[in-house]
Order: sequence, then C-alpha cells, then structure tokens
Amino acid sequence: MMSGPIATQFEAYNAQYANHFSHANIADSHESKVLVLVCMDARIDPAEALGLQPGQAHVVRIRNAGGRAIDAVRSIIISQQLLGTREIVVVHHTDCGMLGKSDNDIRCSIKDKTGEDVDHIAFLPFRDLRESVLDDIRLLEKNPLVLDVPITGYIYDVKTGRIEKVDH
Amino acid sequence: MMSGPIATQFEAYNAQYANHFSHANIADSHESKVLVLVCMDARIDPAEALGLQPGQAHVVRIRNAGGRAIDAVRSIIISQQLLGTREIVVVHHTDCGMLGKSDNDIRCSIKDKTGEDVDHIAFLPFRDLRESVLDDIRLLEKNPLVLDVPITGYIYDVKTGRIEKVDH
Repeated sequence: MMSGPIATQFEAYNAQYANHFSHANIADSHESKVLVLVCMDARIDPAEALGLQPGQAHVVRIRNAGGRAIDAVRSIIISQQLLGTREIVVVHHTDCGMLGKSDNDIRCSIKDKTGEDVDHIAFLPFRDLRESVLDDIRLLEKNPLVLDVPITGYIYDVKTGRIEKVDH
Repeated sequence: MMSGPIATQFEAYNAQYANHFSHANIADSHESKVLVLVCMDARIDPAEALGLQPGQAHVVRIRNAGGRAIDAVRSIIISQQLLGTREIVVVHHTDCGMLGKSDNDIRCSIKDKTGEDVDHIAFLPFRDLRESVLDDIRLLEKNPLVLDVPITGYIYDVKTGRIEKVDH
C-alpha cells in the first residue's frame, strides 16, 4: 500500500528526526504525573502553549473533538491506573468547531453530506465554553472510576495563545 | 478553586508564551487536511516526530490510550465533515501500556485497585502492534461514516524516535 501524500512528508521528516533522536530526552510514561485533555484542533499545540517539552514534563495527552471528558473516560482511567497520572487539566478553546452548535445541527449536516443516519451518535457540541469546561470537570469529579485528583479547567484563546482559568 | 500544582506551572509558562504569540504562525483548523491518530503516551511528541510545526502543517491530532480507532470515531467524523481532513495517519508505538495485555487483565487490575466493577468497559489493549495498526485501519476503511481517504499506519519506536510503516 502506498503512503498517503502527507504521510510521505511525515516519513521524510521523521527520518531526519530519528537521526538526531536522544532517548534520554524523552519523558518516561511510567513517571507521568499529569493528564492534559485538549481539543484536537490543529491551531493548538499543547507542547508549545503549556511548555511540555520532551523530558521537561511527564504529561499524558488526550485529544478529541472539543476536548470532551465523556469521550476520554477509557483513556483517563488507563492514564491513572496504568501510567500513574495524579492531576487533570482540561483545555477547551475559542472558535471551536463544536461551539454554538446542537447535536441536531451536526447530525443533519452529516446526514446531508454522507447520506448516512447518524442519529445514534452524540457529537458532544456545546453552547457555552465556560459551561463546557465546567460540565467536563463535574463529569470527572462524579465518575467513581476517576480518582479524586486536582482538576483545573482552562479556555485557550486561539487568537492570543493565552489560557484563562475557569473557576468552579 | 485552586489550580492543581502542575496546572500552576502551565499557567506561568503560558503567560510567557502568550507574550510572544503570533496568530499568523498557527495553522487554521479550517484548512486542515490530515488527521493524525496517536497514542496518548507522554514519550511521543507528534509535532516533533512528524514535523508538525505550527503553521507548517494543517494537522488535526486525536490522542487516546493506544491510539485506537474505535474510540476516535466521533472525532474522526467531525474532523472530516466539519474541518475537512482528507487523509488519516494512525500511529501506535513500542512499549505501549496497552501492549501484551488482555481486557480481562486490565479489568482485574483496575477492580483490585479501585474496588469498582469495570467489566462493562472495553479498554482496547492488544497483543501485537502490527495487528493493532492493521485492525484500526480496517475498522476505519469499513466504517460507512468515514470517508474513503488514504490511511497510512506506523509503529513509532520510543527508543529510536523512528516510525516504521505497516504495510497492508
């Protein structure tokens, strides 16, 4: 099977990367202490924005559409029980594709484009950024499978690069 | 609510980051063309390993435990239908916490630690790295809600930083 066109670029870049790779500079996942849950949006680089340089921090990163907690529960349990994370940071962001839409909006749009019925899928959009962060913090706090660890929520501004803490 | 201890470090770092932030350098998610599905492991920095510098690539990043496709379907549909990605790259890695375990192993371990019954949760571990990548590619190829786009799979070696393509 041929690589996809962008995958081919990744392969060329990675060959150079691996030539200068130092294993010693990379954080060992078994020492991970914090779990960061962030939207998958291409404009956010958590390593850059939060200072997660290899070796400087032991940070497990979960990313999905919206940075939603309910869709990350499997990974969060594993990060705590198998990798030992003991703090959670939730980051949603301005101008998110999930913001200002309803599940019905998204279902209709996808049904129009694909012809497939997606009424069984919860796409987890939100009307308010602050509320979406708080909802996700509460969901994690209430889940008996998630350890009682510090959870801090932020809104990341894609125009300024700044995080703003959401107090709860 | 107080920030968690590591979150407080993130806040300090981000304040400096935002002071030098240039919006123009960041990829616009609406031009995103590729979706990268990678394990959440702290030892992997896709931006470093694949050359995803801000502004250089339009890359949506999904990360979860193992980099498993079934757990990423909601986000993949959104990345294609709302953000316009038209290529998928799947990256699993050596020394993964999900490798060599069975779902039963993980359920027993978590039940022992937490006292909670987790028999209803599929933790999605795997016995073979090459097979896990191929399984995930096949799952995406067969899903009628996932567009017929190039999908390339890799195994990332955490000791060398090198990706190896999994042919299928």
